[in-house]
Amino acid sequence: MGERVVIIGADATGMAAASQARRLKSAAELDIVVFERGHFTSYSACGIPYWVGGEVGGPDELIARTAAEHRARDIDLRLRTEVSEIDVAGQRVRARDLESGQDYWTEFDKLVIATGATPIRPALPGADAARMHGVQTLDDGQALIETLRATEGRQAVVVGAGYIGVEMAEALIHRGFQVTMVNRGAEPMSTLDPDMGVLIRKAMQGMGIQVIGNAEVTAFRTDVRGQVTAVVTAEAEYPADVVVLGLGVRPATDLARAAGLPLGAYGGLLTDLAMRVRGHENIWAGGDCVEVLDMVSGSLRHIPLGTHANKHGQIIGSGVGGDYATFPGVVGTAVSKVCDLEVARTGLRERDARAAGLQYVSVTVESTSRSGYYPGAAPMTVKMLAERRSGRLLGVQIVGREGAGKRIDIAAVALTARMTVEQMVALDLGYAPPFSPVWDPVQVAARKAVGAIRRQT
Amino acid sequence: MGERVVIIGADATGMAAASQARRLKSAAELDIVVFERGHFTSYSACGIPYWVGGEVGGPDELIARTAAEHRARDIDLRLRTEVSEIDVAGQRVRARDLESGQDYWTEFDKLVIATGATPIRPALPGADAARMHGVQTLDDGQALIETLRATEGRQAVVVGAGYIGVEMAEALIHRGFQVTMVNRGAEPMSTLDPDMGVLIRKAMQGMGIQVIGNAEVTAFRTDVRGQVTAVVTAEAEYPADVVVLGLGVRPATDLARAAGLPLGAYGGLLTDLAMRVRGHENIWAGGDCVEVLDMVSGSLRHIPLGTHANKHGQIIGSGVGGDYATFPGVVGTAVSKVCDLEVARTGLRERDARAAGLQYVSVTVESTSRSGYYPGAAPMTVKMLAERRSGRLLGVQIVGREGAGKRIDIAAVALTARMTVEQMVALDLGYAPPFSPVWDPVQVAARKAVGAIRRQT
Repeated sequence: MGERVVIIGADATGMAAASQARRLKSAAELDIVVFERGHFTSYSACGIPYWVGGEVGGPDELIARTAAEHRARDIDLRLRTEVSEIDVAGQRVRARDLESGQDYWTEFDKLVIATGATPIRPALPGADAARMHGVQTLDDGQALIETLRATEGRQAVVVGAGYIGVEMAEALIHRGFQVTMVNRGAEPMSTLDPDMGVLIRKAMQGMGIQVIGNAEVTAFRTDVRGQVTAVVTAEAEYPADVVVLGLGVRPATDLARAAGLPLGAYGGLLTDLAMRVRGHENIWAGGDCVEVLDMVSGSLRHIPLGTHANKHGQIIGSGVGGDYATFPGVVGTAVSKVCDLEVARTGLRERDARAAGLQYVSVTVESTSRSGYYPGAAPMTVKMLAERRSGRLLGVQIVGREGAGKRIDIAAVALTARMTVEQMVALDLGYAPPFSPVWDPVQVAARKAVGAIRRQT
Repeated sequence: MGERVVIIGADATGMAAASQARRLKSAAELDIVVFERGHFTSYSACGIPYWVGGEVGGPDELIARTAAEHRARDIDLRLRTEVSEIDVAGQRVRARDLESGQDYWTEFDKLVIATGATPIRPALPGADAARMHGVQTLDDGQALIETLRATEGRQAVVVGAGYIGVEMAEALIHRGFQVTMVNRGAEPMSTLDPDMGVLIRKAMQGMGIQVIGNAEVTAFRTDVRGQVTAVVTAEAEYPADVVVLGLGVRPATDLARAAGLPLGAYGGLLTDLAMRVRGHENIWAGGDCVEVLDMVSGSLRHIPLGTHANKHGQIIGSGVGGDYATFPGVVGTAVSKVCDLEVARTGLRERDARAAGLQYVSVTVESTSRSGYYPGAAPMTVKMLAERRSGRLLGVQIVGREGAGKRIDIAAVALTARMTVEQMVALDLGYAPPFSPVWDPVQVAARKAVGAIRRQT
């Protein structure tokens, strides 16, 4: 009789782990049981805003691999089944079939925790009203779309201005809503420095989105049916037929916490490089429920992104299957398309550099995505941070149009290799008029950073 | 009285050197004299195919900085003036004003050789006929366009299938010509391995270009007016009202050779890391007339590209101006847009790896430029070479559509940092559905390469 691995959560991490483990071990060697609370599996949560906005169909299009496909590979996938308890010492989990109500224990030799993250809901009056939506899961997306279809009003308020908030604001515009975005920070997308965030705000305003910055939500007004009617801040009140919460997420680690597993400062599970939960030989965790090492600052962070979740799953599946693989950490790369802008960042913002006790120079340049004379050349702004004296690259932020965003990868690889900005100036990057000016915009920024370091050292 | 620097050649390297030197030294400190045989300065030779194809205007649009702009910065720029001799010991050059015929010597304290490259003309009967064109300089481009306007025939033959040849074939199609491309190799673009080159051929054929591979040109037939009428190979004869030579270029180093300066196996000048000609304190050289260090194979190569030429100029200008800068070498990155395909390469091809005595694995993957469900997701092919056992990345080739080409930069930076394919799998690259599948295609290839290395080691 083989071993059994129990996997909690059937999205990117859980199913990548299951698939990779199955590649390495046959059904006779390894029994794979996956519990998933929701209706869906292996889907692209990142695609939800485009589904809501009507650019892609859903949910079928967003599902990379269906439950039936997984089951055909001898993976015992139990949808609509919620794990309510992990018994670490007893090596078993307790699960409840949400349809039948049946409650039962399942033993494991190995356990994978891939419980993801939960949208943050503010502890405010009216926060649990109807027609208030997070957009973390396909189930969430489905619920939002049903609300959008049902409501006759056309006023939408997005609370929060992170990636999801900004993408959702745009999606709601595409669906014909009047959209107000209420944001605690001065500018949208606090993953960028404010001097770059202002470019996003202007683009959003150009699309007709009302952007309210420096605004603290104090309550949600509701009507007699328990439906939200307005978002209230200290200064004003914004009528709302539907509210989308884009306040970010927190690791869904209540189960892990109750089981006594180690959590970090952000509430995420702590793992080793092989994604094993610290101190536990036979328990792995990955995806949005763990904290990851930021290789630039050296500190742990919570970065819920599908790309990390998939890598974690792959690595966990290798470990579960008896192979060896590690996740060295992240440099904080993210890219997004909002309101015709491509927005990208990697490494440290100014505030991160200060928090890490680093002295830095910061430069910003304007360049173009193609040679200036080539059709379609569009302006792009690149901000670059480098460590004073040493010149080590610390971070890059890019806002531009077609062709701007993925240039962040140049900086992501350079950060991983701990390059200096001087080394970046010498990089042999792809050049041809349809793709780049003769100096890539990232190198234009690097040249300016070299100059700033020479003057300041 | 200050020093004098004489610069031979007023294109990318020469004028970047002049500009950078002027930034560092005033006119009182440094007298800058630039000799240029042609009519133009500081232009994008890479833009010539787009000018011929009608996508960009020219030549004005292709000129980054005019002669007047340079002169306004106290640079003594002498167009249509050809240097005929370098007297190294006497520290002087002999130049001839091509308009007036005046011939004179000019002394220098420092010399910069930026003579570029010359299109290869085959030593064949008829090779100097009228209506046969290289496309290396703006003057060449202007001459070709005049021929295209003058000729009533509509048959064009491109000889050679490198970047320029392929781009010119497409440009001629845009101008309404019937185009035949005659190529010595089996597939176009020998900068790629043939299994990737076949993708280019198919795209060219799809545009209506007749592609003749494995064909050795033996002669050019001419008429009584001395105009070319056909391109002759051992097997066939291709009627031609105009012929474009895309046979590549060789370093224009006749002057340097006559002066006894050191040349390499490809006929390019040999320099140190600061772009000083080896053994000569006060002579620099850069751009298409030098050989550069290939950091992947460790050998010298001749890589005539605007991006290197500009970097060389910058570094030479720093040296001439008394500052310090170096050019560490290249990894062999190039990107091109042909027939709606984006084509990119960096590092070693299979034949390069073999020539370098390296054992390697080669993998090829098909992926998409965006998430499969996102509108505009297009297929792309990535080929990756990695060293056997060590897993060190050796090279990447990409053929795809919108968004494919500049992904080569990921590999270019990874090659510079001497990363393994395993390290590439872990890279934190930008992911969002409009930009990439959750595993970037370059990482999909890296994963496959890791698998190949594991099996072969």
